Amino acid sequence: MSEIRKKIVTIGGGTGSFMLLSGLKKYPVDISAIVSMADDGGSTGVLRDELGVLPPGDVRQCLVALSESSETLRELMGYRFEEGGLKGHSFGNLFLSALEKVKGSFSEGVEEASKILNIKGEVIPVTEQDTNLHMELNDGRTLEGEEQINHNFDLEKIGIRKSYLYPKTRANRKAIQRIKEADFIVIGPGNHYCSIIPNLLVEGIPEAIRKSKAKVVYNCNLVNKKGHNEKFALSDYVDAINGYLGADRIDFVTFNAKKPDKKLIKKYESHRELLVGLKDDKNKKRSYRIASADILSDKKVKYSKADTIASQRAFIRHDSDKLAKVIMMLLEIGDYEKIIKGIF
Amino acid sequence: MSEIRKKIVTIGGGTGSFMLLSGLKKYPVDISAIVSMADDGGSTGVLRDELGVLPPGDVRQCLVALSESSETLRELMGYRFEEGGLKGHSFGNLFLSALEKVKGSFSEGVEEASKILNIKGEVIPVTEQDTNLHMELNDGRTLEGEEQINHNFDLEKIGIRKSYLYPKTRANRKAIQRIKEADFIVIGPGNHYCSIIPNLLVEGIPEAIRKSKAKVVYNCNLVNKKGHNEKFALSDYVDAINGYLGADRIDFVTFNAKKPDKKLIKKYESHRELLVGLKDDKNKKRSYRIASADILSDKKVKYSKADTIASQRAFIRHDSDKLAKVIMMLLEIGDYEKIIKGIF
Repeated sequence: MSEIRKKIVTIGGGTGSFMLLSGLKKYPVDISAIVSMADDGGSTGVLRDELGVLPPGDVRQCLVALSESSETLRELMGYRFEEGGLKGHSFGNLFLSALEKVKGSFSEGVEEASKILNIKGEVIPVTEQDTNLHMELNDGRTLEGEEQINHNFDLEKIGIRKSYLYPKTRANRKAIQRIKEADFIVIGPGNHYCSIIPNLLVEGIPEAIRKSKAKVVYNCNLVNKKGHNEKFALSDYVDAINGYLGADRIDFVTFNAKKPDKKLIKKYESHRELLVGLKDDKNKKRSYRIASADILSDKKVKYSKADTIASQRAFIRHDSDKLAKVIMMLLEIGDYEKIIKGIF
Repeated sequence: MSEIRKKIVTIGGGTGSFMLLSGLKKYPVDISAIVSMADDGGSTGVLRDELGVLPPGDVRQCLVALSESSETLRELMGYRFEEGGLKGHSFGNLFLSALEKVKGSFSEGVEEASKILNIKGEVIPVTEQDTNLHMELNDGRTLEGEEQINHNFDLEKIGIRKSYLYPKTRANRKAIQRIKEADFIVIGPGNHYCSIIPNLLVEGIPEAIRKSKAKVVYNCNLVNKKGHNEKFALSDYVDAINGYLGADRIDFVTFNAKKPDKKLIKKYESHRELLVGLKDDKNKKRSYRIASADILSDKKVKYSKADTIASQRAFIRHDSDKLAKVIMMLLEIGDYEKIIKGIF
């Protein structure tokens, strides 16, 4: 008889999902990684423009994280060409774009890539439609495209009126199905406006999360992004996401309890990147529990020309194994109250 | 107890090797495909120029021919980008070039690609050194590079003084080893000056073939190339190759006995592409036997955007299964005299 495995759905994109999935894949659970499809920068942006394909970058990182194939094949997927007309292109992006062309659709290309890369679980583009992130600011301007939004460091100062996807997009049916069946939905970590929120702007995703029987975990970022979330405390992130979900749906928030090295904090602060704080407001009743634990990486970052994922990692970052362990504790033990008390 | 499998070494490049290997791989033999490394045209030429890699195109075709992976993966390797900065690049070429960068050498990249593509047998670049085909003509000019030579249609008229590789290159050790151990060495078919001869210009290859205990089969082309070999009969090809080998080393020549459709012949002739003939010279004693059989393809060519290998195929071409069958008959039956009489 086969054991019934727990079903975990992750929602995010980019390096955050890579880290999270690298840890979770070591456990005997069914993983479905739902991935943002709003990226339009770098190699991904060029491929979208020139080939008319859907954005491969975030999906690629999730595929590599879940891949159980050789180290070389995983390294190859992250390899970036350094010269000539191919300069800046990630090989893995070309791989996904060529597969999209050969198979006729991005989703089928991703399925085929999943077989080739022998991945554990599945990677699901949040939508199969071509769309871009837009943002209306309080000064009346509209920013178009994730790349532009990501590199605008006055968002918080000016104020955001509204984020939306244009054209409007419906969710990938498989994403809805997996959310429906999930035991755990794990949101983040990742770039708040550019990796997390774009998933929640897809029609059908917030409703599906609201209706799902799953517990919802939110992995709060460790560091606030300059010009985007400098004033955010943990509760601001949670409130923002619950706002997009249309309900106080988040059950647990993971929070890093281990202080990074002081010098490192100073270095980050000099770049207007502050540690996310708890902002203790004891009068307010929280709709969620905070799982506070040491989930900080103390590994040295390996900078390898061929490994762009590693070289993009910040120094203050999650440890994928520690984070996965906390999530698995929350998932495996039914008595959440008990475990939470133990952690918090 | 495991049966001792016969060892076949093929020598060639491009579409000819693709066809040959596609047929041979269906038999229980050990295949080592030695591949020309002088290509400098098209996608391959751009990659050599821009990335400083070794030429991937011919190796790619052999890998795909021997691959036992999914149809999609094989199709992907032949996929050519059609737009933007990637236009004209074969995905498989990018794959091999990125692997060369990741692994640090072309040969290691090819070995890794062989695993990923799950190939039967092995593909061996004839040399691991960067080199180009040169050709001195009787008018004193020197043509540099295979692309230039391939597109010059006055070679035969002007006359060729000498073909050579510059810089001089030594053979890949593994190529020498496999030639030494071979039961059968199968040369061609393929572009005479641009795919076949460049293998024989590599230092060490002719000696190894001379010394090998293997029987040598030469698959003569079906059609002469305009401006290159218009006046060639079968014996001219054989004499030329034996000349490069430094001995009358060819034991068998396969020759197509089936006349193609008259209309098709006319069409070819209008492009100065004539069928290769036998040129019966009964006074001359041949140093080789001719295995004359129907080895002509009667399949319709599939033109697929994604399948550049098929779309490059000429209409008068070998049938890979028929050719492989003739070669296997020559290989499997020790009594060559008997079988040759049967065929010829």
